[in-house]
Amino acid sequence: MPTTSLPWTRHHILSLADFTTAEYDTVLRTAASFREVLSRRTKKVPTLQGQVVANLFFEPSTRTRSSFELAAKRLSADTLNFATATSSMTKGETILDTAKTYLAMGCDIMVIRHQQAGVPNAIAAEMDRLGTRVSVLNAGDGQHEHPSQGLLDLFTIASLIDSDNPRLELLKGKKIAIVGDIVHSRVARSNIWSLIASGAEVHLAAPPTLLPQLFAEYVSDEQREVSCPPLPTPNSPLPTPQLFVHWQLEPALRDADFVMTLRLQKERMTANLLPSLREYHQMFGITREALRLCKSNVKVLHPGPVNRGVEISSDLMDDPEFSLIQAQVTSGVAVRMALLYLIGSGKV
Amino acid sequence: MPTTSLPWTRHHILSLADFTTAEYDTVLRTAASFREVLSRRTKKVPTLQGQVVANLFFEPSTRTRSSFELAAKRLSADTLNFATATSSMTKGETILDTAKTYLAMGCDIMVIRHQQAGVPNAIAAEMDRLGTRVSVLNAGDGQHEHPSQGLLDLFTIASLIDSDNPRLELLKGKKIAIVGDIVHSRVARSNIWSLIASGAEVHLAAPPTLLPQLFAEYVSDEQREVSCPPLPTPNSPLPTPQLFVHWQLEPALRDADFVMTLRLQKERMTANLLPSLREYHQMFGITREALRLCKSNVKVLHPGPVNRGVEISSDLMDDPEFSLIQAQVTSGVAVRMALLYLIGSGKV
Amino acid sequence: MPTTSLPWTRHHILSLADFTTAEYDTVLRTAASFREVLSRRTKKVPTLQGQVVANLFFEPSTRTRSSFELAAKRLSADTLNFATATSSMTKGETILDTAKTYLAMGCDIMVIRHQQAGVPNAIAAEMDRLGTRVSVLNAGDGQHEHPSQGLLDLFTIASLIDSDNPRLELLKGKKIAIVGDIVHSRVARSNIWSLIASGAEVHLAAPPTLLPQLFAEYVSDEQREVSCPPLPTPNSPLPTPQLFVHWQLEPALRDADFVMTLRLQKERMTANLLPSLREYHQMFGITREALRLCKSNVKVLHPGPVNRGVEISSDLMDDPEFSLIQAQVTSGVAVRMALLYLIGSGKV
Repeated sequence: MPTTSLPWTRHHILSLADFTTAEYDTVLRTAASFREVLSRRTKKVPTLQGQVVANLFFEPSTRTRSSFELAAKRLSADTLNFATATSSMTKGETILDTAKTYLAMGCDIMVIRHQQAGVPNAIAAEMDRLGTRVSVLNAGDGQHEHPSQGLLDLFTIASLIDSDNPRLELLKGKKIAIVGDIVHSRVARSNIWSLIASGAEVHLAAPPTLLPQLFAEYVSDEQREVSCPPLPTPNSPLPTPQLFVHWQLEPALRDADFVMTLRLQKERMTANLLPSLREYHQMFGITREALRLCKSNVKVLHPGPVNRGVEISSDLMDDPEFSLIQAQVTSGVAVRMALLYLIGSGKV
Repeated sequence: MPTTSLPWTRHHILSLADFTTAEYDTVLRTAASFREVLSRRTKKVPTLQGQVVANLFFEPSTRTRSSFELAAKRLSADTLNFATATSSMTKGETILDTAKTYLAMGCDIMVIRHQQAGVPNAIAAEMDRLGTRVSVLNAGDGQHEHPSQGLLDLFTIASLIDSDNPRLELLKGKKIAIVGDIVHSRVARSNIWSLIASGAEVHLAAPPTLLPQLFAEYVSDEQREVSCPPLPTPNSPLPTPQLFVHWQLEPALRDADFVMTLRLQKERMTANLLPSLREYHQMFGITREALRLCKSNVKVLHPGPVNRGVEISSDLMDDPEFSLIQAQVTSGVAVRMALLYLIGSGKV
Repeated sequence: MPTTSLPWTRHHILSLADFTTAEYDTVLRTAASFREVLSRRTKKVPTLQGQVVANLFFEPSTRTRSSFELAAKRLSADTLNFATATSSMTKGETILDTAKTYLAMGCDIMVIRHQQAGVPNAIAAEMDRLGTRVSVLNAGDGQHEHPSQGLLDLFTIASLIDSDNPRLELLKGKKIAIVGDIVHSRVARSNIWSLIASGAEVHLAAPPTLLPQLFAEYVSDEQREVSCPPLPTPNSPLPTPQLFVHWQLEPALRDADFVMTLRLQKERMTANLLPSLREYHQMFGITREALRLCKSNVKVLHPGPVNRGVEISSDLMDDPEFSLIQAQVTSGVAVRMALLYLIGSGKV
């Protein structure tokens, strides 16, 4: 179990945008401690005994909810699960009122997922305005952020480089490609923040329709000619010299150390953002063939759930030489234990 | 934790209709003990360890189910949740057979919500007929009763008057208005029983279409003329001189100590029981303006979930000077711990 | 609590087809130990503390899920529930990938129900291929098997004969009728394996449309004439001299010691496999009248949930002189504790 003298003052975890190096390193170190706990015979610690973690999932999710639930149970917290299907939401109550109900019941930590960006922030602000000690943990809000996913990806990569002592600086200078539906991805947004902070070189690759307009202007002229009609010329410098944007897969993968591929939601196709899943796979799918462009020891990440044969070829996903996908899920429990511990242990 | 020498013999909690003063006071005193437990660092007690509380919610509810689940967990009971969506109900099993299945599994307490009045009573009767020791707790049945809500409202009011020693007699002589959709409200029904028992003066205010016919005949002639075409004249005395019935808000609020406003289900409008939500709010909505008729230290209660701007104005709901709505939710956990403790502690 | 020197090496419980006498007896003996635990004041044992049991129910079920959940909690395991309605299944993830996600999170035992036969086997094979120590427990797969139901039926019968020392050989020579929708019944399949293994004489009775074709050829010519147009004559001997097949109820019930009636899914009727529920009840429903053909101390079993008045008459179901239905549910918790214990206790 981690020592209690960690330099941690953050009360809510809503976004990685303003995370400091010290905070990243504290999360990584704490998660490493919990990974050690999880390797023991008895995988539970009494850290949060008597505390209540409410999983308020206004948007359904098995994977993330189970991961947080398990993390909370392994810290000996009690958990309450809320799913929209059986909720008062259908009765016209506002989201803030639902959150305040769980506050009044005595919940200590609220883990919140919502289809709209900003809901966890709004609930956190309300909890603070009311002078409560409740912490809010953003488990994915619309197309905004998914900070625990960003942190578990970071932990997975840093642990691969130095398992005993994962820390932010290990990623410095690494080339990391993020491929796929970036415009709709809260995972990509959280990852961009942490990777830039680490000093990595981040290359985004996506079809123009799946890239944020903000980034589109940074695509090089050469690529524009190939892929689509000209867009307005860039009129501002890239926000950071570490971020590169591509409309094609190749330049992103070339000599990459890590490739993060994103889930493609099939609804995008019906919205005419994509020609077909097959064509998407041909252009942006991660395959053994495509990986030849990367460093020889390249590793692939995916936040799951995976559409096999769309974002990534099926055999590659299962190849332990390349795939970190299972390691990400395992990291998820340790990282979420770390987050619940860091925001929760000050309460008791 | 409460002492074990409480004068409690009731095995099921189905209705407040026959609650005695001693029972009300035992619940209030026990809930006050648990409120003290909930203020401690470690909010759990081992009272019901090894017992199983099954939440059988045939009608979905987040708020009440979470409150009971948390109460059970804080007493260290194991909980099982049943929700209709994923149940055998779709397979044609009868409700009694479902309950008997949970009995045979070894459940000790069944917390039951059902859209039909009388289901918890029927299950309790069956449990007794079979000679079991299983207790049934009515968590809301149709338009019949919601006793734990009535008790938590009572606890909230009594605690406001004397936090250290909440007891039934504290409400004696208080004027309490219950406003809104009384005919469909199981909350109103449970509250009327407890408030009459306390010696309070209860004033019901609702549009004629949302008042039980039983009560309609007690509306004064003066009000009839104002509000709607004449109804048959009263032919029997009011069941108690403490109960008053109004078709208008004003006489109910005048000099009131407490105002209980009820949830208005929007379905009522489509059933032509109401002209519009806006008109309802104008006539029966609780606002700062309306509260000027009450005593200056009046407090407002609502069982939740609230339709802001319909039953109550949004700013009033959030005003801690007037609103007891959050306090009700907090009381709910303590009162439900008390109820589970009182019916459960005799079993182990 | 059972002693730890039990002769148990099986890692997954997927089917009763290859269960040995020693394994049946170990399950029966272990379940009897847990039944004793369940009769104590404190019904929990710390056996699986720190282990995680994931209930992956791709097909909804209240009864079986609650039974496994309660068994796991009474062994002090942590539980995770997965229900299809709120799962990533809707997001296109494969079943194996879902299982691997729970593996990566650190689950120790997966209890799996799926509408397709073979899913638990496939997941178990994948867990082994990956070199994991995760155990899979089949909680019902399509029309294939439901081994924990077969074992709890066995335990219920054996305990009735010798409560202190339930064992397989007690059923030797007993006549046991299995009546109803055999072709669609995973319960019947599991029961046939265990009953044949015990040396019981098993008589299947069903309308021709609800019997597996494999069995239909063993129906005697005499019955064929009565019930339906001639089918091809048998061309192979019955697989075991203990198994008898009937198109009518009477020969199955004559002098039977136990009658297992099966749930009739009403969907069968719309598929034209049955004329009407009333006619089915008249021909194959178990009633007091029908039981006169059996031994005088005959007992009736049903896996639940029951369609009262279809498979079995309503009064018979509730008659403790004949019905073992409640006893089956109670046995279920003890047997599932035994199974989780046997496959789980080697892990810690």
